[in-house]
Order: sequence, then C-alpha cells, then structure tokens
Amino acid sequence: MADKRYYLVVRAIIRDSKGRCLLIRRSNVCHKFVGKWEWPGGKVDKGESFDVALRREVREEIGLKVELVGVVGAYGKISPKRIAVLCLEARPVGGTVRLSEEHDQYSWVALKDLHKWDMTYGLMELTKNYVAAKNRGRKNHG
Amino acid sequence: MADKRYYLVVRAIIRDSKGRCLLIRRSNVCHKFVGKWEWPGGKVDKGESFDVALRREVREEIGLKVELVGVVGAYGKISPKRIAVLCLEARPVGGTVRLSEEHDQYSWVALKDLHKWDMTYGLMELTKNYVAAKNRGRKNHG
Repeated sequence: MADKRYYLVVRAIIRDSKGRCLLIRRSNVCHKFVGKWEWPGGKVDKGESFDVALRREVREEIGLKVELVGVVGAYGKISPKRIAVLCLEARPVGGTVRLSEEHDQYSWVALKDLHKWDMTYGLMELTKNYVAAKNRGRKNHG
Repeated sequence: MADKRYYLVVRAIIRDSKGRCLLIRRSNVCHKFVGKWEWPGGKVDKGESFDVALRREVREEIGLKVELVGVVGAYGKISPKRIAVLCLEARPVGGTVRLSEEHDQYSWVALKDLHKWDMTYGLMELTKNYVAAKNRGRKNHG
C-alpha cells in the first residue's frame, strides 16, 4: 500500500535581542490567507535538511540570516496537501529585514502582545502554547 | 558564521483499531535511558524525507508497516547532539510486532493509562498534551 506523501514545512519565531518576535503579513499575491500574519518559513526541498531549509527560507523571505536556537512544536495540515509544520525558534545573526512579494508588512512584537495578532490558524494555537511555556519559565528542550 | 548542525528524529504514537498506543521499552544495549518507555522511531537519514524515515524506522524497530495519519507535536534536545524530535501519529497496516535488540518489551496501552508509564522526558510532556488534546476532542491538524 503506497502511503500518501507528506511535505515538511519549517517556520521560525525569530526573536531579537529585546525578545521581540518577528511577524510578517501575507500579501495579495498569496493564494490563501491574504492579510493573515505568520512566522517566516517554507517548504523543505527534497533531500534538504530542515535546518538548512529554515535558514534558506528565512533569507529568501525576509533577508535575515538566522541561527536556530530551539524547537517550539509542530502541527499538521491535511488540505490541500498533507503537511507537517515544524516550528522553531531562531535569532538574527545578520542582514536587515527586506520582504519578498509574498508579504507586505512586518512587525517586531512583544511576547505579551502576540495573541492580539490575526495569525494563520495552526500558528495561532502554537504561539499561544509558546507564550504560555515562556511565561512558565520552561525551556523548550528537555 | 557556520550554524551548528541539527538532526531530525521522527517518532510515532502508533494506535491500533481499539485506539491503544504502542509503547516499547529501551533495553540494556542502549547507551542511555535503559528501562524507559518510548514511541518507536529514529533519526532521519541525510537526504531522506521524514515520512519515509518514519516508516523505515518503525519497520526496523518493531516490524510493523505503518501509515502516517497526523502530526502530534515536536520538542528539542541539545545534549549530546542538537536534535529536533518530530512526533507523529500512525496506524498499523501490516506486519506483527517483533522487537530489535534495542528494546526488550512492548505494550499496547489505553490512552487513559499512558500517564502511568515511565517515558523518556520530552516524550512524556508531549504525551500529556496529546492525551489532553484527544480528551478535548480536538483534531491534530488545523
């Protein structure tokens, strides 16, 4: 029995030296979720490792060089494709924010204000858990 | 600046037709966590996609053919290697349980009893969230 193919997507909550998180807004060239806010990221290419993919996608999407610092969580989507979204934490190590045409705004947001932003659904859930974990002072590796 | 390398590990909570979950116990050939219970899985090989890796690892480790049905979550470890653990849900589609030398016991456990098992730390946290989500009747894709 051939299993249905899954794609792996990586996204990063990028936190600056003040602890603020970078959100970017989907522009009207996107097919779906125009106007929703999200964390930068994208699909892992065939044969590519997830950490390399994360740095490449972030660089392409927002012009920042980032370093991976931890794992936040994951969620799945089954429509229109079967996708696993692996969510990571990263910090900027170079570059300046420069958006591609897929996004039209960005904002550095304090942890306590993240819940006010209209994010894509799976990411909103995960962000809620991330903020709760940070508030409990837990580390995201164990 | 060269980023430190991360490895991707995949693990699956395998649920049978009665909804029970498969736990396996680490044997004394393991370097660490001997006697702890875990979900089957292992490291994604270089260039391998995560869903292929999951099916391969489960087949090698416990002799079952499985089909991926969803995403449960993820956690990170930084010692001794930097690892992201992507946790999935799967169901058996063939084979019978046959352990490799890395495990010496297995058990099919009801969802409500999972918290009683002495699992490896990151997995225990994730299992708790998984059971809570299932009890709330939430789907693990959104």
